Amino acid sequence: MIKRYSYSPIIDTGAVVKNIPLSEGSPTPFILTGDGAFVYHMSDKCRIYGLGEATRGINKRGWIYDGWCTDEPLHTEDKRALYGAHNFILFDGEDRFAAFFDIPGKITFDLGYTESDTAVITPESFNLELYIVTGDSLKDIVSQFRALIGKSYMPPKWAFGYGQSRWGYVKEEDIRSCADRYTDAGIPLDMIYLDIDYMDRFMDFSVSSERFPDLEAFAAEMKSRGIRLIPIIDAAVKKLDGYSVYDEGHEQGYFCKDADGKDFVVGVWPGMSVLPDFLDPEASRWFGMQYKALTDIGIEGFWNDMNEPALFYSEKALNNAIEELKNKSDISLDALNFFGLRDTMNRLQNSPDDYKSFYHNAPEGRFRHYDVHNLYGYKMTKSAFDALTELRPDEPSLLFSRASYIGAHRYGGVWTGDNHSWWSHILQSLQQMPGLNMCGFLYSGSDIGGFGGNCTRDLLIRWMSFAVFTPLMRNHAAFGTRSQEAFAFGDTEVFRHIIELRYRLIPYLYKSFVKAVESDGMFFRPLAFDYEDDGIAATVEDQLMVGDSLMIAPIYRQNAVARHVYLPEDMRLIRMSKGDISTEELNKGWHYVSVPMGDVVFFAKSPIPFAPPAMNTSELQWENLETL
Amino acid sequence: MIKRYSYSPIIDTGAVVKNIPLSEGSPTPFILTGDGAFVYHMSDKCRIYGLGEATRGINKRGWIYDGWCTDEPLHTEDKRALYGAHNFILFDGEDRFAAFFDIPGKITFDLGYTESDTAVITPESFNLELYIVTGDSLKDIVSQFRALIGKSYMPPKWAFGYGQSRWGYVKEEDIRSCADRYTDAGIPLDMIYLDIDYMDRFMDFSVSSERFPDLEAFAAEMKSRGIRLIPIIDAAVKKLDGYSVYDEGHEQGYFCKDADGKDFVVGVWPGMSVLPDFLDPEASRWFGMQYKALTDIGIEGFWNDMNEPALFYSEKALNNAIEELKNKSDISLDALNFFGLRDTMNRLQNSPDDYKSFYHNAPEGRFRHYDVHNLYGYKMTKSAFDALTELRPDEPSLLFSRASYIGAHRYGGVWTGDNHSWWSHILQSLQQMPGLNMCGFLYSGSDIGGFGGNCTRDLLIRWMSFAVFTPLMRNHAAFGTRSQEAFAFGDTEVFRHIIELRYRLIPYLYKSFVKAVESDGMFFRPLAFDYEDDGIAATVEDQLMVGDSLMIAPIYRQNAVARHVYLPEDMRLIRMSKGDISTEELNKGWHYVSVPMGDVVFFAKSPIPFAPPAMNTSELQWENLETL
Repeated sequence: MIKRYSYSPIIDTGAVVKNIPLSEGSPTPFILTGDGAFVYHMSDKCRIYGLGEATRGINKRGWIYDGWCTDEPLHTEDKRALYGAHNFILFDGEDRFAAFFDIPGKITFDLGYTESDTAVITPESFNLELYIVTGDSLKDIVSQFRALIGKSYMPPKWAFGYGQSRWGYVKEEDIRSCADRYTDAGIPLDMIYLDIDYMDRFMDFSVSSERFPDLEAFAAEMKSRGIRLIPIIDAAVKKLDGYSVYDEGHEQGYFCKDADGKDFVVGVWPGMSVLPDFLDPEASRWFGMQYKALTDIGIEGFWNDMNEPALFYSEKALNNAIEELKNKSDISLDALNFFGLRDTMNRLQNSPDDYKSFYHNAPEGRFRHYDVHNLYGYKMTKSAFDALTELRPDEPSLLFSRASYIGAHRYGGVWTGDNHSWWSHILQSLQQMPGLNMCGFLYSGSDIGGFGGNCTRDLLIRWMSFAVFTPLMRNHAAFGTRSQEAFAFGDTEVFRHIIELRYRLIPYLYKSFVKAVESDGMFFRPLAFDYEDDGIAATVEDQLMVGDSLMIAPIYRQNAVARHVYLPEDMRLIRMSKGDISTEELNKGWHYVSVPMGDVVFFAKSPIPFAPPAMNTSELQWENLETL
Repeated sequence: MIKRYSYSPIIDTGAVVKNIPLSEGSPTPFILTGDGAFVYHMSDKCRIYGLGEATRGINKRGWIYDGWCTDEPLHTEDKRALYGAHNFILFDGEDRFAAFFDIPGKITFDLGYTESDTAVITPESFNLELYIVTGDSLKDIVSQFRALIGKSYMPPKWAFGYGQSRWGYVKEEDIRSCADRYTDAGIPLDMIYLDIDYMDRFMDFSVSSERFPDLEAFAAEMKSRGIRLIPIIDAAVKKLDGYSVYDEGHEQGYFCKDADGKDFVVGVWPGMSVLPDFLDPEASRWFGMQYKALTDIGIEGFWNDMNEPALFYSEKALNNAIEELKNKSDISLDALNFFGLRDTMNRLQNSPDDYKSFYHNAPEGRFRHYDVHNLYGYKMTKSAFDALTELRPDEPSLLFSRASYIGAHRYGGVWTGDNHSWWSHILQSLQQMPGLNMCGFLYSGSDIGGFGGNCTRDLLIRWMSFAVFTPLMRNHAAFGTRSQEAFAFGDTEVFRHIIELRYRLIPYLYKSFVKAVESDGMFFRPLAFDYEDDGIAATVEDQLMVGDSLMIAPIYRQNAVARHVYLPEDMRLIRMSKGDISTEELNKGWHYVSVPMGDVVFFAKSPIPFAPPAMNTSELQWENLETL
């Protein structure tokens, strides 16, 4: 049962694909207070699920979150927002209901942060539609919600292979050498990602002729080895006369404008840049069709980045800051003045003032970016999806994004952004998955080994052992960090075995994924969703159900060689050790399970199909599989 | 058995109090390589303990650490150094031995980070004494080392009470009101800390006459209520003509000098400041005697801060940066130039260049600060301890510090510095305790509730339930963060019960502490130290032995109401629930223990004395106690 309440929506976000009749009166069980907050008093036992990729536990109770797409490079547990604004929240207490706050601007979820027993949800501007979903079970509520927002994006089969990425592969030879080292080690690989370095001066849809003299031939060479190249596309377009994408967009008025109607200029990787107006259908289609430059030379997938949008600075704010520095720098500095001066520069990045200084031309009219901020990355993904569907009508393209909003799940996946080489981020990734799935984002995963900071061999092994089960399985790292490819730490056998296991499981994972898409279900589920009457299952925050038959319980602590695993029913333990699979029957309840480094352990409710090992998805056998 | 190896030591750090004859030849089991690294090949089972307050697990294997006192405000798991340089490390593998690298400069401990099976310890400059300790057991090795470095600091009894702190109590009335709210709630309290706001313009040994018009009378008023005031002392002295501490020190040449022999000027809280030369015995004694200004008006304890030393900037580097900003700011900025410009200011804080730009006058000669950096906080603590012993000969003073080096443990405690209101920092605190104890720092604890960021009610309850057992039990928070006193979240009964439990346990905790001091033992021990043959105990990273009879296993995950606890032998579970104590016999092995919010659960090997509840230590009954 879904009820819709409407509070002066300013724009059709497109998140919802069904017409739900309008309900009048109070949005029970919320109390709508006079100062515009939706308040719900929680019983002690009330748990809260949802909020997509937000930080912290599977149970979101006890913290405060913002629905606000944020370029956040440090995913510590106190962060209120990451890249996606996923305003779906599910209460499981005395009442059981979910709420979707469809609002393009900012909204705050105080979930027992200020008062332990009270959830207070406050839209910053009161322009929203609210959907309240009730149902027979947690899964039923999610399923009804998912039907409301439309079927999830379905990637190509090969996107379930393993991919290697690194910001720092700057030339063809870096990529070839990476592929060679995988081949030499006998480690399967389906994709190598191209980060911003493949472009000419970070200009979208350009290719550096110096470093990639013939990308078409190179892509073909790689594909003949079973490896696809997946380039990045950043949201902003370099402001450079003579650069055709800029010239065309500028001429056609396709970029976001400042209050005076001039292109709003921001600084990002290419330096001074402009922002395509993805809320303008014509601009959006125009930008999408630029992908043709790359699809024409054989590219079959993309990742869209920097589309919160991330702004290092705006031209105007930077000029102001420099003026301020010049004026202030003569004063005798005490500590606070020093910090003030220092922060003049630090405050520039992703500043709300900048988001308030440019405008979109949507079909409904002109909107200040700040008020529709959360739609930007979403509409960029839609722009690409629509164009790729037209450009490559015969087969699906791979597409995923950093920023997102519910609705974007129909057009692409998401990765969880710029995490770190922290042990805590293995668990964080696991805990992000069910929230993302509830919001329709099924094709997802985290940067294996961590994006920022330096990885260690053991961290990579344990992280990969979890990522074997994430639909998007990509190893990615930032510029200047330690190499963390599967070949980077020597003694590659252990990595070969783990990635090989991934390929052996692809038929199960893919079939489970397709089923989740088609049935509006969740690929990853908290144990509580499958075992509603099990009081312990409800508290387990470090295990997940994967598809209908599997449960995972990875190791996420350095130097740990065992962990407690809760079995909500009798299951078989499946162990991959040095490439060999063995099984063991275990009874319902707690088990202290040994997981030596390199072993992958998981749990099955029913027989699981295993494909024979394969070096990539095109070699993979999909039928007549051994079941274990 | 202790062997000493000597490699051109440049200064007597004073860390060691025993004469150990010099050994010649190779420092086995290390191999000393040609490029000056101490290398040890580790078996798979080798665990590594030590490194004092360093981040990450009790077992330090798998990361890289620096021995370098660092003002680090963000204790994420990747940080290589915090405030203390605690260069003691204990290998427990095929060989069992410890090493103490007595070096006043920088040293790096690569403990299986670069190569999983190899420890590589590299002093940056080769000026060190190395002690290798072998023995019959882990405890025996630590005990021998502790005898080498001398008896640990013994605080007054009242320092085992509970203390409240906050950067932001700016005036007498703030403190009185804090005390009143504790009294009104019936929550015991022994200390209120004064952060930098009590001073006049952050000048050491001054008191703001406006905000604390009569600190002597106020301290007496508080003491009559059983509450002592504990002011902060920062390392640097404001450079201000007419400020007697500055004038005197400047005239006598007691401040660190630049290469030209002029006072080296740095920016910290008071603005432009100078650094007392704690390596100069005369300067050190002179600075210590300044505490008299506060002991004369009834102050009985201090915390020394900012003594890594923390430098926001140096006068010279700031002027250079501002020049650079002025010159660079006209150029057209691409992203990298922008980040470069921004970092011109961000790079100023705690810059190695500044540490290389000033000098100390030690008895052995003139030293560049960078080469003896790790001694600064240590020698500040010694300065205060020596003076307080002279000024208050009849009773011990409370003294603890942020920066430290082994040796400082004889003169004061340490707190673990500027942590955050993160759940992960409950566990981090627990894991720091045994390392600190090995290095002699017995009087220690973390800022309960977290210093940076915003605390929640549940975090405070769980953190406090752990801190019941830390000798230093202080709630402290940064300016601008949410209030987190035990009265700040309403419904104070639960906090009253937990803090009351602390007081009931003080006789046990104090006696255990005294025994650890006198026997060169550890107050907090990893389970592995007491149960060397128990393979599971060796892997437990979230429980500790406390004194001879107790074991703790706190909750450190939000929304958790139970956890697994490993009992290495049969023990009694002791549960405090709503002020009532109950016990339950449990068998050796794993238990899934329920810990509802507000309950404190711990484990006992033998009967534990419980004092009757008391509102402060002066009311506490120490003898004829009930045992449970």
